Amino acid sequence: MMEGKRITDLLETEIPVVQAGMAGGVTTPELVAAVSEAGAFGTIGAGYMSAEDMKESIREVKKRTSKPFGVNLFVPEEPEASLEDRERAAEALRPYREELGMDDGDAPEVPDVFLEQVEGVLAETVPVVSFTFGIPPKEVIQSLKQAGMTVIGTATTVEEAVQNEEAGMDAVVAQGAEAGGHRGTFDTTFDKAMIGSMSLLPQVADHVSIPIIAAGGIMDRRGVDAAFVLGAEGVQLGTAFLTTRESGAQAVHKEAVLHAGEADTVVTKAFSGKPARGIENRFTREMEGRNVLDYPLQNALTKPIRKEAGRQQNTDFLSLWSGQSPRLSQDMTVAELIRSLVGPWE
Amino acid sequence: MMEGKRITDLLETEIPVVQAGMAGGVTTPELVAAVSEAGAFGTIGAGYMSAEDMKESIREVKKRTSKPFGVNLFVPEEPEASLEDRERAAEALRPYREELGMDDGDAPEVPDVFLEQVEGVLAETVPVVSFTFGIPPKEVIQSLKQAGMTVIGTATTVEEAVQNEEAGMDAVVAQGAEAGGHRGTFDTTFDKAMIGSMSLLPQVADHVSIPIIAAGGIMDRRGVDAAFVLGAEGVQLGTAFLTTRESGAQAVHKEAVLHAGEADTVVTKAFSGKPARGIENRFTREMEGRNVLDYPLQNALTKPIRKEAGRQQNTDFLSLWSGQSPRLSQDMTVAELIRSLVGPWE
Repeated sequence: MMEGKRITDLLETEIPVVQAGMAGGVTTPELVAAVSEAGAFGTIGAGYMSAEDMKESIREVKKRTSKPFGVNLFVPEEPEASLEDRERAAEALRPYREELGMDDGDAPEVPDVFLEQVEGVLAETVPVVSFTFGIPPKEVIQSLKQAGMTVIGTATTVEEAVQNEEAGMDAVVAQGAEAGGHRGTFDTTFDKAMIGSMSLLPQVADHVSIPIIAAGGIMDRRGVDAAFVLGAEGVQLGTAFLTTRESGAQAVHKEAVLHAGEADTVVTKAFSGKPARGIENRFTREMEGRNVLDYPLQNALTKPIRKEAGRQQNTDFLSLWSGQSPRLSQDMTVAELIRSLVGPWE
Repeated sequence: MMEGKRITDLLETEIPVVQAGMAGGVTTPELVAAVSEAGAFGTIGAGYMSAEDMKESIREVKKRTSKPFGVNLFVPEEPEASLEDRERAAEALRPYREELGMDDGDAPEVPDVFLEQVEGVLAETVPVVSFTFGIPPKEVIQSLKQAGMTVIGTATTVEEAVQNEEAGMDAVVAQGAEAGGHRGTFDTTFDKAMIGSMSLLPQVADHVSIPIIAAGGIMDRRGVDAAFVLGAEGVQLGTAFLTTRESGAQAVHKEAVLHAGEADTVVTKAFSGKPARGIENRFTREMEGRNVLDYPLQNALTKPIRKEAGRQQNTDFLSLWSGQSPRLSQDMTVAELIRSLVGPWE
């Protein structure tokens, strides 16, 4: 496993496979611990968590495994939106609230928890912290590295990868256009940064010297091997872990992924205000082309709707995140998945 | 080279590398012959050619090489457009015609040359015919196969690949979203069929038994190896051949590709009416979101503009087709390129 040597040294794990830090309840302590126990690298998707919930989650993982794992955080943004924009965005969602039998909601709050989260990971001494949506402030990177932690960034273009290396990241996730969930793009417009992994990986590999973790479309051994020959030293899988038994994704979400085809996903801003790839449903279709607030404002607006839709098992209004390879998804345990990814190496 | 055995048997060539049948003057007899002479498989991009020009081109290639090569044809469509639509589309282009100092043009004709082209390849006995934009009528496939020719289709989704196999194609090009030039999509909407190669190849491989030729983002040995591990048995490269010395692409087009980055391309319908990937320029920016006619009507409308822009070396109005890996493009000979793709195999 020569290819993954720098990554396994960095993550102090046996297998250069990272479970993506999917936010929104997927990365339960059971999932994260099972991944690390199986010799790969589990990640708590803490993007939407309060610092307290994140710390509790870290402690729960530690109860279940002594192996290393990571925490993924969202680098915050502070978008502006006029009262009129906010009202219009809320108005667009009113029919769905009514259909789900929900009361008119209060204007949601969007607390900035990032620095508290950073303090939390420092307090709980998590070995690896990864970032999405940008590069954190210099002081954050410094304090984490001074505490002996490994830091990993996310890039969707060559330039973003270079910026991550220059900021001192120990490794960078190169997120191809195939990837499910949110796009990590931060340096250019989102549509410009939809680069397929076949193109992204070798071009990034030619421009950075830190190890690259490939993300996007990788579901089985074929994807792992392809990522390595394209210049990656590790791989990050989201959708493949989402349908495992240990994943906290809702049953209706898992079912939707298990039955989807490669052409069933869309990239939509409707749920969160940031483009993300998921299975097309009524909400993504009806909201297409409509004005939505920037992240995280739109995310806060749709959160109660998604929560209620989940309670009602109504997939019309759920964010059914998935990459472009759902035909390769399987209903199996984390250990089985990881074994299938590394089998012939052993 | 076990992986490419079925493809090299099919194409009767040494190396499982196909030069894409780029239309519009790129695939000169010099280019096609040089590719086949070097042991790979050259293709005349005859999509826009009259049957006579195509036959002349075939004869010119045969003068230069005795090795096998192919012809790529566009499966025709007959779009409808009202007089009003046509006038509006022509009107949108008027400022560009004026800027280039062109007279008002006559309404362009769009002759359907497909059946004449088919008769032409039968008459000239070309060993391989490949198709883009759909599956040709049953009788066409039958007559080509009865003449001992190999037929190859193009797919951008699993379903399209399955349809190609069912139609009797001997192999199928799986065109990932990274690919430059026109999208081959014919069975679904174009935006649904933007599947990255990392996702497309293994999912297609699981659903067809004919050999798959991977296209999209492949520029060097890394891409070739990745395509093979993902389930392809051959590869097709367009952009990589476009910048070779022997290519007929205009010098300003080659220069634009050689200096572009991975995030500089867009998918635009502005040039031809069908989505195609090329380097963003003034024309793609200014025409974005504007109504254009369906292919091939829009193509006929913009053809004189592109021709004049080419004459003036004005890249503002040229279709600068390129895939998403232009950073990997090189100014070299066909023989050097092919050697770099296969080197360590020898």
